[in-house]
Amino acid sequence: MRIDIITVLPELLKSPFEASILRRAIDKGLVEVYTHNLRDYASDNYRTIDDYQFGGGAGMVMMIEPIDRCISKLKTEREYDEVIYMTPDGNTLNQKISNQLSLAENIIILCGHYKGVDQRVRDRFITREISIGDYVLSGGELGAAVLCDSIIRLIPGVLNDETSALTDSFQDNLLAPPVYTRPAEYKGWKVPGVLLSGNFPEIEKWREEQAYLRTRERRPDLLDE
Amino acid sequence: MRIDIITVLPELLKSPFEASILRRAIDKGLVEVYTHNLRDYASDNYRTIDDYQFGGGAGMVMMIEPIDRCISKLKTEREYDEVIYMTPDGNTLNQKISNQLSLAENIIILCGHYKGVDQRVRDRFITREISIGDYVLSGGELGAAVLCDSIIRLIPGVLNDETSALTDSFQDNLLAPPVYTRPAEYKGWKVPGVLLSGNFPEIEKWREEQAYLRTRERRPDLLDE
Repeated sequence: MRIDIITVLPELLKSPFEASILRRAIDKGLVEVYTHNLRDYASDNYRTIDDYQFGGGAGMVMMIEPIDRCISKLKTEREYDEVIYMTPDGNTLNQKISNQLSLAENIIILCGHYKGVDQRVRDRFITREISIGDYVLSGGELGAAVLCDSIIRLIPGVLNDETSALTDSFQDNLLAPPVYTRPAEYKGWKVPGVLLSGNFPEIEKWREEQAYLRTRERRPDLLDE
Repeated sequence: MRIDIITVLPELLKSPFEASILRRAIDKGLVEVYTHNLRDYASDNYRTIDDYQFGGGAGMVMMIEPIDRCISKLKTEREYDEVIYMTPDGNTLNQKISNQLSLAENIIILCGHYKGVDQRVRDRFITREISIGDYVLSGGELGAAVLCDSIIRLIPGVLNDETSALTDSFQDNLLAPPVYTRPAEYKGWKVPGVLLSGNFPEIEKWREEQAYLRTRERRPDLLDE
């Protein structure tokens, strides 16, 4: 998989891709991630990529021309499955979307900033608009990093233990059950006895019950899906 | 405001706080953000902070003892409003929660990793569990960065133009209307005429209509709240 991220803040995206699972996936050759500084596609010497909005009001708007140039250049080099725009009013990301996108070959992610991009960019170039949640961030970069993380960890071979992703929350519309590790007692607080019993059918049953109970208590909406 | 982030990957959190609005807020003295490497609180020479889960199964679990040490040390130094755990089965973050948390004095954010933390940590030390959305990430660090960004930009003085945050999506349960900037025509694609009219009451009316239409089309659930 290849991911091209278009941003005005490429430096913000440095450390997330230099650490953890993302770094490992890149080192293993399972994914390539490139960031493109939108200012390199500006048409003036000031590297301007934003301007006041028509009709007045606070906040700058990202111009269509530099974005068009950058996307068009990338598209001459390869085919893209999706051109994604990160925006709070996009489709809310969920595990199903991440699963789908983890199967793509090439994707472009455009990070919004300021008041967002000129609407004509969205109408003409974007195939999918994604929000990571119902809150506003100072730019699309963290959203892009979150999207990449959620996708990349699903690519086969990225996680060390392949069964690990399958028991995560959301993969079966249930939250994960509580987990415990040593010591069995800490300051008088004990681990549930069944987990120490060695009786694996019982442990499995307990976990299923706990996952169901936790989901019913915290996220009953997931059970209706 | 002071934010203490407890993590096994402090290096992942570097660049988000060195760029953009977060950096500016820190430089202006409006917020202090500290990361604490959980391994510094391990009790053995290998700096172990995780162990196999009781009852078997894939994935490691973060141990209670190093987390207890780190949180306890911070608590001897000051009072905390919240000790937040980032986890996919927590309360889903939204703008209302971000608004609330932007009023806090001191908060601790614990980043989960692997299969998560020992349940006793959650039962004993955590005051609030937050998820940034219904998808699984490789760790809580990006979630913590997202949470910090959404909170910090709401602190008065952080955004250059204070009215800017007030017209964002979600602040009034409506999505933001489309925005446009120069040129008025690009490759034959035109900006809606009303925005060029200079008739501000008409522009205001158009924007309200568009915000409502967009919300009804994309997120009718927001209108019911």
